Amino acid sequence: MRVQMREGERARSSRLADHTTPFVRSEWYVAGLSGEIGRQLTARKLLGVEVLLYRREDGTPVALRNRCPHRSFPLSHGKLEGDVVVCGYHGLAFGADGACVRIPSQALVPSAVRAQNFPVVERAPLVWIWMGDPDQADPGAIPEHPWLHAPDYTHVGGYLHVKCNYIRLHENVLDLTHFPFLHGEAVGDLAYAQAPFEVAEAGASVRITRRLEDHPVNAGYGSAIGNLGHRVNRTSESWFKTPAFHVAHATIEDLEGGVGGRAEFHFKILHMFTPETATSTHYFWASARDVAIKDEALSEASRTRAVNTFLEDVEALERIEAIWSSEPDDFHEISVTGDRAGLLMRRIIARRAAEEA
Amino acid sequence: MRVQMREGERARSSRLADHTTPFVRSEWYVAGLSGEIGRQLTARKLLGVEVLLYRREDGTPVALRNRCPHRSFPLSHGKLEGDVVVCGYHGLAFGADGACVRIPSQALVPSAVRAQNFPVVERAPLVWIWMGDPDQADPGAIPEHPWLHAPDYTHVGGYLHVKCNYIRLHENVLDLTHFPFLHGEAVGDLAYAQAPFEVAEAGASVRITRRLEDHPVNAGYGSAIGNLGHRVNRTSESWFKTPAFHVAHATIEDLEGGVGGRAEFHFKILHMFTPETATSTHYFWASARDVAIKDEALSEASRTRAVNTFLEDVEALERIEAIWSSEPDDFHEISVTGDRAGLLMRRIIARRAAEEA
Amino acid sequence: MRVQMREGERARSSRLADHTTPFVRSEWYVAGLSGEIGRQLTARKLLGVEVLLYRREDGTPVALRNRCPHRSFPLSHGKLEGDVVVCGYHGLAFGADGACVRIPSQALVPSAVRAQNFPVVERAPLVWIWMGDPDQADPGAIPEHPWLHAPDYTHVGGYLHVKCNYIRLHENVLDLTHFPFLHGEAVGDLAYAQAPFEVAEAGASVRITRRLEDHPVNAGYGSAIGNLGHRVNRTSESWFKTPAFHVAHATIEDLEGGVGGRAEFHFKILHMFTPETATSTHYFWASARDVAIKDEALSEASRTRAVNTFLEDVEALERIEAIWSSEPDDFHEISVTGDRAGLLMRRIIARRAAEEA
Ligand code: FES
Ligand code: FES
Ligand code: FES
Repeated sequence: MRVQMREGERARSSRLADHTTPFVRSEWYVAGLSGEIGRQLTARKLLGVEVLLYRREDGTPVALRNRCPHRSFPLSHGKLEGDVVVCGYHGLAFGADGACVRIPSQALVPSAVRAQNFPVVERAPLVWIWMGDPDQADPGAIPEHPWLHAPDYTHVGGYLHVKCNYIRLHENVLDLTHFPFLHGEAVGDLAYAQAPFEVAEAGASVRITRRLEDHPVNAGYGSAIGNLGHRVNRTSESWFKTPAFHVAHATIEDLEGGVGGRAEFHFKILHMFTPETATSTHYFWASARDVAIKDEALSEASRTRAVNTFLEDVEALERIEAIWSSEPDDFHEISVTGDRAGLLMRRIIARRAAEEA
Repeated sequence: MRVQMREGERARSSRLADHTTPFVRSEWYVAGLSGEIGRQLTARKLLGVEVLLYRREDGTPVALRNRCPHRSFPLSHGKLEGDVVVCGYHGLAFGADGACVRIPSQALVPSAVRAQNFPVVERAPLVWIWMGDPDQADPGAIPEHPWLHAPDYTHVGGYLHVKCNYIRLHENVLDLTHFPFLHGEAVGDLAYAQAPFEVAEAGASVRITRRLEDHPVNAGYGSAIGNLGHRVNRTSESWFKTPAFHVAHATIEDLEGGVGGRAEFHFKILHMFTPETATSTHYFWASARDVAIKDEALSEASRTRAVNTFLEDVEALERIEAIWSSEPDDFHEISVTGDRAGLLMRRIIARRAAEEA
Repeated sequence: MRVQMREGERARSSRLADHTTPFVRSEWYVAGLSGEIGRQLTARKLLGVEVLLYRREDGTPVALRNRCPHRSFPLSHGKLEGDVVVCGYHGLAFGADGACVRIPSQALVPSAVRAQNFPVVERAPLVWIWMGDPDQADPGAIPEHPWLHAPDYTHVGGYLHVKCNYIRLHENVLDLTHFPFLHGEAVGDLAYAQAPFEVAEAGASVRITRRLEDHPVNAGYGSAIGNLGHRVNRTSESWFKTPAFHVAHATIEDLEGGVGGRAEFHFKILHMFTPETATSTHYFWASARDVAIKDEALSEASRTRAVNTFLEDVEALERIEAIWSSEPDDFHEISVTGDRAGLLMRRIIARRAAEEA
């Protein structure tokens, strides 16, 4: 492969995270949905590491490394006795904190025998895990997502396993210019793709904002609100909050008197990306709204629409990942104006990964 | 793996190309058959690179890198609009020369945004591609193959995907000693394998010539010519012309008066090898003759015989490639006198690859 | 992966063989069962190398490298003519000693053209191979296993292909503490796992001995001997003899008068591990006894019990191998007291591999 690249470009691209960048470990990631984690031993690979998930008898979730410190047997194939996991090979038993509590063939249990324990925090319907230095694990750093709990909101959600690096998924959700091409005009037309936007970096987060004023409400929002045909102001904010979490806010301001005594309506899409390996990602998503919250049919339609759209993204991103793995790794991609937010995000991830190295 | 190898041998073998040698890029390779390339977007990996093939509205073939310069989406999953390819992810559009002609989300199109374009030349029924420096692409360097176009010839041909390095295929067609062992006596008997031969190197090509005088014509040629039972002189010339192209000429001189007023008859077998990866090859072949050119049944029989023979070669070469990948890469092969042409060919490829490095 | 490891530990673990340790070549390994090797050409990968096995006309077994020295064609796809193997590609022919005896396309056969020959020795029902320096191959170094030949013994045996490194299999059979956890109490109860043991290193072998005095005979031995209900002394000796061979001796001393005029009974389990690759092993086993040697039903039951038990080991070890390949290679396992024999074995293998390097 001979790829012409000027020195300056090469230097620049080394500051952009990609699938070769080490994972950012000092971060909270979604380990699973509350409903997935129970009294059965469940294995999931997170950030390249085999993790065991289960709940204590009191219901609190636990994450241990799914690899017995003795001879690497996967603890998920052992047994849960109370809160204690018993390895299926030689019977070493580990408490929920990872400490070994029993070695059947000897009386003494040295304190060095421990399964690695990862801090977890449940914010139903999500369970979050911290895989960096446990002493740095501050639950206050979990990004807010009140729309999944608050009584004035309803949401639908789901999970997709995606065979691409998580950074490409972040780039995809920060980029609205692909809507008419990948998803068709129903999801976002050309005017929307071309609308002016603002990109703001704040700390280690990036926000891209678009505002369309005095437009007819689009079909999706209009049928949820019940104001089809009205003119509205629409503000869309896509927010890369952390390497694990992206939220898109849409605010619809009805300019023709509103519906049911309200003129402002909110829609949220949450994208939670947890790297599995360098080339695969656990993708948890949720779509919330503060209107028609009892309307089950609407929720079902919204779930279907979301899944269909995400599957189009997944198919495109998996094709791209396949190209990266089938060709030498030195291809130089060119960015356009619409990529600004994505590039900032990749710089942030590269910087955070470098800080941990 | 402990393989005894003297220093001298090691040095010698480093001058012989094998599956670890980089591809020779400054060369014309067959990208496809004319009939394979049309108005649909077609993907094919050539020399390790994903290539997109299609035809302009005026019918001329186009080859672009099948990887959008923006975010690596395979252009073959986009759309063809006139001569322009529109990427299926964000809609960037590229002309047949690779220049970007549209970025939907912005007004300005920087000239640096280009899909890589590869020179192609059609010599029906073949389309040739040049994947080296485009400035060096001289269509005059495409090896002659008039027997596929000339009115006094007819040919049959086909395509095989082979899971071995292309150099082993070249070695196979330069070597006639394997005929009775791999293919059976019908294809070439022991006398033929043992016949004296001459090897000549000319520039970067190699020719091996065998001449059998005053022998009974063999069954294959005899039934085509209609001179079964006659005594003939037979000259066989196998010619490695380029890393992409090998042609075998057989000339049969009838010593008993000939048939239909002629005493000399020509048969040609063309082997066109285009590396896909280091361990797989696109194998295009054709078999031409200047006798009985309207005889469809004969053509069909000749096609069947060729395919059956080539499949035996393919099976043997795939077994060899499998051994190379299953064992450490330091095995030292020993050559015999019959390998002289193959060794020259491997030296030429090694030298050409080194020149490009 | 951040794994805390003190310098001292890292140094220690580098002296323990694992799946990254080169194979010990100067050793006799089981190449196959006598019944597997005949007049057909048989391919088997041993210690990472493709090996061809067959028998001469006089019945003696032969092992050659299964790779023609000419162009790497697998000789197993050629033909056997008398004692001579004829390659299926260009017909080079090799005697049972590996010497080339014929090159069809030339008169002279240089003595350098040889297929690699490996010393083999048959001790029915096993055929042993030596893949190190042939000059060092001393059949006297094959570990004794008279229980497979002696008239006062009977045995059952079999073969399992296991997708794990052979060292994990050695570790498994040197360790009796996993019995109640992996296999259930019928194979070995907790008392047995906790019984005191002695570990002795002798030269490059390791022996672990357990003695239970004045216990009720267990079901397996009791039903073979016919002394169910009797109290017995039981001595168990597990012996790592070579990287290829492990034998477990159980001696049952009947304390209540014995059966049929005898008070002492012997049971042997032989584990023969031949590495295929770094992550797969040919596992030959046999289970012998010197009691009820005509009892076919007992033999059948003993075979079934053995296979079922070994399959549990295999499943566990394959899960462990899978974890090692799916996670980074720097995991630090912790050992317990019961691992002493296994650690000695790993030290011996590491030392022997280092001596060969
Ligand atoms: S591997 Fe878990 S107890 Fe030994
Ligand atoms: S990847 Fe082709 S336009 Fe973006
Ligand atoms: S590869 Fe065996 S004879 Fe040529």
